[in-house]
Amino acid sequence: MARSASLPNTVVIDVPEQSLYGTGNLPYGVFSPGDGAPRGGVRIGDWVLDLAVLLNDDVFTEPTLNAFMAQGYQRWAEVRALIEEAVAGPVPQKAVYAHDAVRMHLPFAVADYVDFYASEHHAMNVGRLFRPTAESLLPNWRHLPVGYHGRAGTVVVSGTEIVRPRGQRKAPAADQPTYGDSHRLDIEAEIGFVVGTGSSLGVPVPSTDFSRHVFGAVLVNDWSARDIQAWEYVPLGPLLGKSFATSVSPWVVPLQALQAARVPGVVQDPLPLPYLREDQPWGLDIQMSVAWNGHEVSRPPYRTMYWSPAQMLAHMTVNGANLRTGDLYASGTVSGPEIPERGSFLELTWNGTEPVQVGGQTRRFLEDGDEVVITATAPGCDGSRLGFGEVRGRIGPSTTASPSL
Amino acid sequence: MARSASLPNTVVIDVPEQSLYGTGNLPYGVFSPGDGAPRGGVRIGDWVLDLAVLLNDDVFTEPTLNAFMAQGYQRWAEVRALIEEAVAGPVPQKAVYAHDAVRMHLPFAVADYVDFYASEHHAMNVGRLFRPTAESLLPNWRHLPVGYHGRAGTVVVSGTEIVRPRGQRKAPAADQPTYGDSHRLDIEAEIGFVVGTGSSLGVPVPSTDFSRHVFGAVLVNDWSARDIQAWEYVPLGPLLGKSFATSVSPWVVPLQALQAARVPGVVQDPLPLPYLREDQPWGLDIQMSVAWNGHEVSRPPYRTMYWSPAQMLAHMTVNGANLRTGDLYASGTVSGPEIPERGSFLELTWNGTEPVQVGGQTRRFLEDGDEVVITATAPGCDGSRLGFGEVRGRIGPSTTASPSL
Repeated sequence: MARSASLPNTVVIDVPEQSLYGTGNLPYGVFSPGDGAPRGGVRIGDWVLDLAVLLNDDVFTEPTLNAFMAQGYQRWAEVRALIEEAVAGPVPQKAVYAHDAVRMHLPFAVADYVDFYASEHHAMNVGRLFRPTAESLLPNWRHLPVGYHGRAGTVVVSGTEIVRPRGQRKAPAADQPTYGDSHRLDIEAEIGFVVGTGSSLGVPVPSTDFSRHVFGAVLVNDWSARDIQAWEYVPLGPLLGKSFATSVSPWVVPLQALQAARVPGVVQDPLPLPYLREDQPWGLDIQMSVAWNGHEVSRPPYRTMYWSPAQMLAHMTVNGANLRTGDLYASGTVSGPEIPERGSFLELTWNGTEPVQVGGQTRRFLEDGDEVVITATAPGCDGSRLGFGEVRGRIGPSTTASPSL
Repeated sequence: MARSASLPNTVVIDVPEQSLYGTGNLPYGVFSPGDGAPRGGVRIGDWVLDLAVLLNDDVFTEPTLNAFMAQGYQRWAEVRALIEEAVAGPVPQKAVYAHDAVRMHLPFAVADYVDFYASEHHAMNVGRLFRPTAESLLPNWRHLPVGYHGRAGTVVVSGTEIVRPRGQRKAPAADQPTYGDSHRLDIEAEIGFVVGTGSSLGVPVPSTDFSRHVFGAVLVNDWSARDIQAWEYVPLGPLLGKSFATSVSPWVVPLQALQAARVPGVVQDPLPLPYLREDQPWGLDIQMSVAWNGHEVSRPPYRTMYWSPAQMLAHMTVNGANLRTGDLYASGTVSGPEIPERGSFLELTWNGTEPVQVGGQTRRFLEDGDEVVITATAPGCDGSRLGFGEVRGRIGPSTTASPSL
């Protein structure tokens, strides 16, 4: 509860002990109160606090977090301390909104979006499905974090309807490709990392500079049309099988909140090249959950990822490519070693051959009206847990506004 | 010459008859006069005209063309007519700068960047080089314009030094990958199309709407590190082999200037699916030229491209992906059927096995200090020719600022 305090027009923020949004979390987002303009906020307990009001800082009147993120990691630490200090006492009533009464927006303007392929279990599963007679992992996979650029302009905030894509696909047995709705619409449950401060063109960012550049983490659902992807992807990689939409959670969990979630990295064999090595390799113990029409179907464990967030960053810039504020890079599908830990339906239903039961209905891939919600928690300090909020998306029928074909 | 006119403080713009920048061209760019701020300009003859002054339109005081481009194709036509009218008479002296006395900037803020692979000759050459025992063209190639997303944040304007990328590469005969300078640094001579007005998420843009969305064309040099690319690119396509830099020319040639350059499209067999068909398939008769250290080594003919600009646009959005102002999509390497028409050094030197002589020096790929200049012309109205300006880049040594490795 926010209860009135002794000072007039102020309230005290009470956070239930079991809340996933205690003062150890303090995720940033962009919200609209009622019909107001989008502005920066922080979530605490069941409340969203207007940061421009709380901290008297105009950078949070911007419609994205980019200007704040660009201020750099020292400022991020200062602002976090200021928020902790502010919420310890009475806060202005006009800074406080119930979290379920505000509208959430895309928290940052996406500059470039890179999607990696960092789960060994996911890469193995895909290899077994599509190259059953060959080595599951391609020769480069253990040497570098494989990735590709996705479409920044179709990164959308949780809750945005996902229009079923149409396109060109060819069944393996068919002679010719055909045009129409994707019939193999899938998810990929991922964690995304948001770049706060950019870097200079021509100068690689070493893995040790991770915390200087990366502001925080979000949940990502990299919607995937498997039939479109399978036909188009050689030799230049996925394009239309992915570019119709990528959903992200509205709350960016600051890296500082994830200190207690750091775990030793998985053993990498062979030892990666020096530019990919870390003194103390680390991963993140983020426990994800995937719900299909309200039924949990998978619990992907992020701690099993092969390539770490800092390694992905170092690799992405080793050729001198610069970072910009708002760059987003995602992990690729998070799949653990067990079947109920797989982060895509392609894997979970073994390419549709092992359908799953979802609330009494049989599912292979997504049907119109289906809704997927990905959530995650991670250890916080003092035995608490932190929430990432959710990334939610419902499938709408393919558009009727397309040209007559 | 710009000579003084009868009105005080005005001049008359004289354009030599053979100029590639006559009133049929009128390309847009962003320039800085002396130490002034970047602003929108138009090139005519040997002059750059300050459009904010010439037209008294504040949209051209912006540091990119994006705000103007977003005003839509009807406004583009109006402004073009206003410029034509203005330069027919005396223009304010303070609007006129010598083109070689101004500094040119990236003309638009790049939203998303997609690179296609639309030349059949290029795709065939690459196939013959890398899959000598298989069909040169992959099964999907004649059915859809293959493409991928590149890095928007490393699109740079002509003249920007290209720092030789480092990264991970593995020679086919080697056991293990190694880290170091790219030794197979290459160019790709391309034409890029700049999106002016966006579209709605979920609604494909048909090929017939090409002129409503695409503002103009630029020259593109898609610098490519072949050794890095060859090792990384399976299965998700090129990433670091391309993302270190992509250079574009500073002048955007408006689509309206390219009416006379339209030519019938090449014959497509098989007939593409309906969403890729055009009533009157068309290409563009743009004659490109590639100079290596001042010596012309290739003349790629854009008219030989298999997939048209409108087909690439329709394909890129068929899944509902929306366009944004500033989206750039490029054709992929322009290679004609003849050896001296190949738009990459990979093809021109047949993967280094057939070196070329460049001013008495032997070259396979780019060496430090090498400079590449790509230019192009196209037919204008009344038998004139239009220039695209140039995209120029010199290779600098790999950075010494990288982390100690």
